[in-house]
Amino acid sequence: MSSEAFKLTIHMVSSLDGFIAKNDNSISWLDTTDSYEKGVEVTNDVNDAFLKSIDCYIMGSGTYEHAVELSKTNAWAYGDTPTIVISQRNLNVNRSNVQIYSGNLSKLIKEQLEHKYKNVWLVGGAKLVKEFMRLNLVDEIRISILPILLGDGIPFFENLRKEHLLHLQDVTAYKNGMVELLYSIKNK
Amino acid sequence: MSSEAFKLTIHMVSSLDGFIAKNDNSISWLDTTDSYEKGVEVTNDVNDAFLKSIDCYIMGSGTYEHAVELSKTNAWAYGDTPTIVISQRNLNVNRSNVQIYSGNLSKLIKEQLEHKYKNVWLVGGAKLVKEFMRLNLVDEIRISILPILLGDGIPFFENLRKEHLLHLQDVTAYKNGMVELLYSIKNK
Repeated sequence: MSSEAFKLTIHMVSSLDGFIAKNDNSISWLDTTDSYEKGVEVTNDVNDAFLKSIDCYIMGSGTYEHAVELSKTNAWAYGDTPTIVISQRNLNVNRSNVQIYSGNLSKLIKEQLEHKYKNVWLVGGAKLVKEFMRLNLVDEIRISILPILLGDGIPFFENLRKEHLLHLQDVTAYKNGMVELLYSIKNK
Repeated sequence: MSSEAFKLTIHMVSSLDGFIAKNDNSISWLDTTDSYEKGVEVTNDVNDAFLKSIDCYIMGSGTYEHAVELSKTNAWAYGDTPTIVISQRNLNVNRSNVQIYSGNLSKLIKEQLEHKYKNVWLVGGAKLVKEFMRLNLVDEIRISILPILLGDGIPFFENLRKEHLLHLQDVTAYKNGMVELLYSIKNK
């Protein structure tokens, strides 16, 4: 598999004011009550096929711990897909498909993931997004904007301090009022 | 004219990471170099007709001073449309269609603007947006997202501290990679 085939995509679901989580970590806001007539309907089949196209997830320890917390009342959000948690901490992991990594991020991509996978998703948080962006490791950004202003919470982007030109690849509006924007990063 | 006909719209052009201006106030980033094939082309005629539908602009003193600064090298961005600058400061105004207002914002809308205008645009900055949102005076939010990550600058939203449910009304993607999202504010 050539390295051209490999793609690292940042994906996050965000409020219009740029928050990816509430301070109390509640997630009911993710179920919108909105209805957008011109929007696309998402069937479970389409959604399942889409999720299956993701080979590997990367996340920070905060995102991981949030997912663990949620898995006590809901399903584990990342299924059986290989998941790499970037952390210097000694996290308690009891899933065979979850691996802790604390080394160099460029090496992780170039030496461990690039030859093995095609479609890797970085799902947060903001600090890790910033670090991957700084290292020019990101190919695409996929943002799903929900029709809500949260007013407070954990921001999607920390100040990156650096400018990046983007190329709009696709825009999809859904029946539930969610808008998905897909960008590739220019001059990567 | 009934008060139902009146609409206060927040409008801002923002980077994907939520900035409306760079720290050095340069504006060349507003001219994208992106090209989105599926996007809509904007003709000058359509744009002129659209701008003519705006009856009045409201802005904070920072936004005003930035516009004055820009008008030294470009045209004054708000034309002959009545413009109200919210400020406690003694600003130097030399345009007959620009008026300074320092009083109560609800009174401004309900006593001065609602019976006179239909389509009023609040064009920033973040502090004023927050204040109008807090007072439940806003009907719509129109955000034009440019295909760029600025990494730093003046944010679109200050933490509003309050949740607002939105209704997605329209999504338009343009040939230059700009995506315009139009929301109304629920339970206003």
